Amino acid sequence: MAPPPQGGRNYPLNCWWVAALADEVGQEPLARWLLDTPVVLYRGATGEVIALEDRCPHRQAPLSAGKVEGDVIECPYHGFRFGPGGRCVHVPSMASPPPIRVESYPVREIGPIVWIYLGDQQRIDQVPPPPQMDWTTDPAFVMRKGVMPIAANYLLLKENVLDLTHLGYVHAASFGIMDWVNPPEVTVDGDRVTYTQDFVRSPLAAGYAMSLGLAPGMPWNRHGFGTFLSPAAHESGTVFFDPDQPDVPGGQTFFAHLTTPVDAGNMLYFFVAARDFANDAAAMDHFAQILMRGFREDEEILSKVQALSSRQPRRGSRGERSVKADAAGVAARRIVDRWMARETIDDGIDRAATPD
Amino acid sequence: MAPPPQGGRNYPLNCWWVAALADEVGQEPLARWLLDTPVVLYRGATGEVIALEDRCPHRQAPLSAGKVEGDVIECPYHGFRFGPGGRCVHVPSMASPPPIRVESYPVREIGPIVWIYLGDQQRIDQVPPPPQMDWTTDPAFVMRKGVMPIAANYLLLKENVLDLTHLGYVHAASFGIMDWVNPPEVTVDGDRVTYTQDFVRSPLAAGYAMSLGLAPGMPWNRHGFGTFLSPAAHESGTVFFDPDQPDVPGGQTFFAHLTTPVDAGNMLYFFVAARDFANDAAAMDHFAQILMRGFREDEEILSKVQALSSRQPRRGSRGERSVKADAAGVAARRIVDRWMARETIDDGIDRAATPD
Amino acid sequence: MAPPPQGGRNYPLNCWWVAALADEVGQEPLARWLLDTPVVLYRGATGEVIALEDRCPHRQAPLSAGKVEGDVIECPYHGFRFGPGGRCVHVPSMASPPPIRVESYPVREIGPIVWIYLGDQQRIDQVPPPPQMDWTTDPAFVMRKGVMPIAANYLLLKENVLDLTHLGYVHAASFGIMDWVNPPEVTVDGDRVTYTQDFVRSPLAAGYAMSLGLAPGMPWNRHGFGTFLSPAAHESGTVFFDPDQPDVPGGQTFFAHLTTPVDAGNMLYFFVAARDFANDAAAMDHFAQILMRGFREDEEILSKVQALSSRQPRRGSRGERSVKADAAGVAARRIVDRWMARETIDDGIDRAATPD
Repeated sequence: MAPPPQGGRNYPLNCWWVAALADEVGQEPLARWLLDTPVVLYRGATGEVIALEDRCPHRQAPLSAGKVEGDVIECPYHGFRFGPGGRCVHVPSMASPPPIRVESYPVREIGPIVWIYLGDQQRIDQVPPPPQMDWTTDPAFVMRKGVMPIAANYLLLKENVLDLTHLGYVHAASFGIMDWVNPPEVTVDGDRVTYTQDFVRSPLAAGYAMSLGLAPGMPWNRHGFGTFLSPAAHESGTVFFDPDQPDVPGGQTFFAHLTTPVDAGNMLYFFVAARDFANDAAAMDHFAQILMRGFREDEEILSKVQALSSRQPRRGSRGERSVKADAAGVAARRIVDRWMARETIDDGIDRAATPD
Repeated sequence: MAPPPQGGRNYPLNCWWVAALADEVGQEPLARWLLDTPVVLYRGATGEVIALEDRCPHRQAPLSAGKVEGDVIECPYHGFRFGPGGRCVHVPSMASPPPIRVESYPVREIGPIVWIYLGDQQRIDQVPPPPQMDWTTDPAFVMRKGVMPIAANYLLLKENVLDLTHLGYVHAASFGIMDWVNPPEVTVDGDRVTYTQDFVRSPLAAGYAMSLGLAPGMPWNRHGFGTFLSPAAHESGTVFFDPDQPDVPGGQTFFAHLTTPVDAGNMLYFFVAARDFANDAAAMDHFAQILMRGFREDEEILSKVQALSSRQPRRGSRGERSVKADAAGVAARRIVDRWMARETIDDGIDRAATPD
Repeated sequence: MAPPPQGGRNYPLNCWWVAALADEVGQEPLARWLLDTPVVLYRGATGEVIALEDRCPHRQAPLSAGKVEGDVIECPYHGFRFGPGGRCVHVPSMASPPPIRVESYPVREIGPIVWIYLGDQQRIDQVPPPPQMDWTTDPAFVMRKGVMPIAANYLLLKENVLDLTHLGYVHAASFGIMDWVNPPEVTVDGDRVTYTQDFVRSPLAAGYAMSLGLAPGMPWNRHGFGTFLSPAAHESGTVFFDPDQPDVPGGQTFFAHLTTPVDAGNMLYFFVAARDFANDAAAMDHFAQILMRGFREDEEILSKVQALSSRQPRRGSRGERSVKADAAGVAARRIVDRWMARETIDDGIDRAATPD
């Protein structure tokens, strides 16, 4: 069930993945390698996001090194131009353009996120749309967001956010949340996996306490939860409660952990965090600083795991041994496998080589 | 027809290639990897260039890390010495040397260029000699030259110099030649491909104008041409004419673009440029500066093309689509294929793996 | 007989190898890749060295990035703990640990050296113990030691120390020993190979002379020797004699050259040097400086040899040609082959791929 160590694909193609944060895409071309595919993203004349194959069919130059004019992108090598649908619209040395094209990919911009579909176009209507996360477009929530390339298979971060018993080890110095010890409740509902954990009169970590205006270590109630929404998206959060008023939510925090495979050993990790309290700019900036520190701790451990699993040892144990705290992660892997099994697209990859 | 993305050989062995510029070779050994082969070059007692396999047959040390004495090169590890013909002439621990040797390669020094033959020695007489470029030894021309390693297959530069419609895109900021838009006339004569293009009362680029002592943008006549001389060599140039005296050449510029494969994804690009006007040292130095800027632009785009074609995408278009402006490049590829087909040397490479 | 250029194993598994110098191992985990296997070393509560597989069986994190408490090492990711025998003794989210484990490797600490056995545990009693080098525990000798990673197959250093005719070439500027020209006497006794060479009234190198309190170039007697003790260990030395009292040893120098394969193209080179004369701290420090300079010269030439043999040329000579001075090295290679042939351990490596 582990990610493929030396290659092989362990992600579904017929799925909406995150291509970029909305504010990363502008008039300047943005080059991204997504699902083992070179993609160039830019905004057209009316501001809509355009995603094309990032390879000129003439002589293989990356279009992303060229320039955008209106809806059109121009190859940096010989000036071939391509429109938003991928069709060649101009070759400088020709009176009219030849019938050549690059692939064009459907995108959807929803709140802070640009989603892309790189799968079988015939199947797009049967594929679940980008998962809804209402708080990302709810003005009651103030957001901070970012993107981090991580030299690890995307599933490693998936499992990371589905098993928070690593908090007390990887993030002791940053988040300081030391009470996430017991395996959470896990429920599987179709293609979704949700864990929940309730903390009752549990001492608040310093970061939590500061945001709530309370003393660090103050016994407080909180409800933690997380949901595998799709192979691309995980949503999690915490709701705080005054232990003396346990029915009145006293602040909510939400996270989107969005992972897009680059190739077998690399991912892009997009994250969005938001809360509906203590969300003035200074407080949110401080919150974002702590988050970045924690996410870099994840990057460090995950890239070490990837490096170790990529450098095949001569002998010694292989495979992995799961425990109860892995229930959500293991269920998520099964769902990813189901998404992959549903695909019949001929992508030239030997299916027998993918993990099971 | 594209260069092999992941390896495979797409260059002929039985061909004279450029090993070095003449002034690169001296008493100090020069290590070069040419045609997937380690070569050491040095000058012997009488100044002649010697080229040997750069690998001691005793324990595989590179001879180029050793020292030269007269005609002889000494291995840096145990002091084995080899003469210009490749024969071992001394082993320090032995009274007389054993019958071991390294390969010795024919070289020809012509003007500023050292040519090498690494192919089948039995066939050397049937192989065209290094192509003649008379201006490289004509005192009327003043030269500037250089060598640049480029992380790209050698054919990519070949095509680059055979299709100058890239001038207005890759070199707009350096050469500023914006009028090379139409496909040139192309003629194929045996193993040579020549393009020509005449510009009549066309505004002079700033660099051209400066060298001619004219105002930038002045309408002027010029005749541009380029010839694929062999898989190793391309010659090009421009002849300027006063539009009011179109039969009197008013200055000539010549270029040699000499590309030697290092391996499937790397080349050495040797270039020589010369002109018979505005060729005092200061003017030539300025000329060389502009050239270097332009050649670095080529390096940048070609290494991007190579990187993209080396990182195989999961899907998307493959192959290349040629247009009329590629006529010379496509003809050149066919000639390279013919050179390769003529070879029967058993080099241990599966011929089926080479492109066609 | 050359080391495998592109991989393949050319070292025996059933052999005691050096894991570390004793003073490298403490309470902090030490990560080492040994024989293509990730190993973590640390000292337990009573100071004994513990060696475990450096890979948590839960989610593949390197244990060496975690922390040691007493005899126990804790995984940095989820806090799983493992005892010195490799058994999991604690999982934070579980009441009692699951029956999972990492491999535990036998170690022996002898004087300055920590030996490790990574082979077939069923065969350990049939495998020769770590070779004895009495001088490493003899208080009459003062030692200097170190470890150097070298980007070369371990056999390259093996051969280097078995053929000292390289002294006058690789080490002319450091050791300055120019009289090691003739092939030495070589005797093979079972799995040991010994060379000896006597120098009579031979001018002393500057380093030798300084340590003996004599003038550089003074004619002096010395007996040089070296023994391949096992695939892991080579011992060598020099005994000095006053030419006028040739039966009275006037000082002894010993070296241990200990090489442990990391992978096909990398080794760890551990060295210990000692002498029973001129061994106050200042003299030994000066001695160590000269040694380090010389060992770096070895590193430089060996990594060049490895680089050349790893980058397969298209053509040219292959293999190696040995001369009389290689007699000891060639005999050693045969012994390594015998060690390997004795193994029947199923390690998942195709034996046909190993060199012969």
